[in-house]
Amino acid sequence: MLRSADALRQLAVTSLERRGAPYEMAQLQADLLIEAELRGLPSHGLQRLPRLLVRIDRKLADPRARGAKSWSGQGFLTMDGQRGLGPVVMMEAMRELEDAVATCGIAVAAIRNANHIGMLAYYAEAAATAGLIGIIISTSEALVHPHGGTQAMLGTNPIAVGIPAGKEPFILDLATSVVSMGKIHNHALRGAPIPAGWAVDAAGRPTTDPEAAKFGAIAPFGGAKGYGLGLAFELLVATLAGSNVAPEVRGTLDDRHPATKGDLLILIDPRAGAGNAATLAAYLDQLRSSRPADPERPVAIPGDGSRARRTKALSSGIHVPDALLDRLSALAAA
Amino acid sequence: MLRSADALRQLAVTSLERRGAPYEMAQLQADLLIEAELRGLPSHGLQRLPRLLVRIDRKLADPRARGAKSWSGQGFLTMDGQRGLGPVVMMEAMRELEDAVATCGIAVAAIRNANHIGMLAYYAEAAATAGLIGIIISTSEALVHPHGGTQAMLGTNPIAVGIPAGKEPFILDLATSVVSMGKIHNHALRGAPIPAGWAVDAAGRPTTDPEAAKFGAIAPFGGAKGYGLGLAFELLVATLAGSNVAPEVRGTLDDRHPATKGDLLILIDPRAGAGNAATLAAYLDQLRSSRPADPERPVAIPGDGSRARRTKALSSGIHVPDALLDRLSALAAA
Repeated sequence: MLRSADALRQLAVTSLERRGAPYEMAQLQADLLIEAELRGLPSHGLQRLPRLLVRIDRKLADPRARGAKSWSGQGFLTMDGQRGLGPVVMMEAMRELEDAVATCGIAVAAIRNANHIGMLAYYAEAAATAGLIGIIISTSEALVHPHGGTQAMLGTNPIAVGIPAGKEPFILDLATSVVSMGKIHNHALRGAPIPAGWAVDAAGRPTTDPEAAKFGAIAPFGGAKGYGLGLAFELLVATLAGSNVAPEVRGTLDDRHPATKGDLLILIDPRAGAGNAATLAAYLDQLRSSRPADPERPVAIPGDGSRARRTKALSSGIHVPDALLDRLSALAAA
Repeated sequence: MLRSADALRQLAVTSLERRGAPYEMAQLQADLLIEAELRGLPSHGLQRLPRLLVRIDRKLADPRARGAKSWSGQGFLTMDGQRGLGPVVMMEAMRELEDAVATCGIAVAAIRNANHIGMLAYYAEAAATAGLIGIIISTSEALVHPHGGTQAMLGTNPIAVGIPAGKEPFILDLATSVVSMGKIHNHALRGAPIPAGWAVDAAGRPTTDPEAAKFGAIAPFGGAKGYGLGLAFELLVATLAGSNVAPEVRGTLDDRHPATKGDLLILIDPRAGAGNAATLAAYLDQLRSSRPADPERPVAIPGDGSRARRTKALSSGIHVPDALLDRLSALAAA
């Protein structure tokens, strides 16, 4: 069913407020989910809300917590998220870093014990809109096998980068797995095979059966290099945030455990640098107009597609499956 | 011919000193090249030296310069490399950041106008050996085409990450291209075809002919994701260092132009974080002993292979092609 972003946001806000979230925090969590829907990323959208509400009911998520802050350097903030909502703790960290980045030119927040922070592009865009470079890295349950391995040992360990670049910021957001577990579940629902190379089954054999893949492991993107980056992110987050490494991570895909992954937010002030946004904007346009492989498909800049989908969905509305909409309406009323 | 690392280092030092490099700087530049040879990376080893010596003769490289420093925040150092040797300016930046990282917990140096910094792992390892996390990003001439594009518009934009992790640090070093231009030249020399998917020719057509690829463009690694990361690094370096974007970069592959790429060094103090190196070491061992795809090839951690090759080459010697050795001997005598 098609619904407007505003109507869906209100539905999410109400269901969160009913479970004790202050308006401002409910608004932030709801906004994150709606922004994912608007960008065509339903895996990070409203389908995450029912589980989050159960987590609040079970005290695995505290909708009032902002996180406990501790500075171990003028530009180094450690946060215990106190089981708070992911976006609430992340945006609190971003606000808290503001003075530090003004003083140091670069600053980092290392966060443990916060709930799922969802679509990372949200924070990259918030930083870039405030005139700052934002780099966000997060970890997850073990879902990805090492290059040359067959067991799920790493998180999907996404990174987002936001850079002010003229009128539109550059926004990159990617997981270091070749595909998300959500997409594999989606193939399973449709009874469609998955492409070769995406996953192995529980015994470590390459598989095109999404049902078998659900109990196996996803490949890293880009072979040894993607594996190396995903592993570097795993280690960076664990050593700075004091969060768990993937095999011990719980709580972003279940409603039974506290969230034990970690998140990093690095902010850099580009005004401290020697370059300028106009150069970047001109270069990005040069890329867009460079010779494409397929004459029908111009070269794209990361973020272009999301921006176009968002604009369209703001006017046309967001499609939400009927069953999910019914469930969300019930949760907002209960 | 096989030569000891010490003998080759001395040869390189002598040729640099003869061109005015103070002993300490000659030693550093030579050490970088020898360490690349020891790790089995001859493309970043002694074959780079003759060109560098020409660059010194032509005043495109100043073997005495350390770089001019300017602080624009307590943790943000901007450096004009003053045409200095890449490793001299980078290690000067690393020393200079020491106090900043102690104060801020994180610090960054953005460098323009320095010569080629070579194998990035060198700096990642230097940082990790000093107990710090090091992230190094560099740019280059336009050699890589965008995902969905066919023109060389991006640098090979490598990243290295060094993280203290118990007795051996974690060291990752990779280019965001699927392969180096050096490897394509190597195929051309041997008259061997290159694998499909590595490159396009000057007209933008996929090619397996290395001679055609030399005038075309290399693919990014990992499709759209690798392209996105390479582009993010391109923008980060340009906007922070004030260096050129790829289409305007010169001077790392020629002996006619000043080097106009840029380099970033980010240092983070892991002692400011809440995690610990013992957890990382245990996790890395867990990965190494996890189930491999091929029973004969255990899962590897980035850096393991380099470390093993280095140990072997230290005792067996480094193989240098006769022609190169003759040339280096002549350059050290002239």
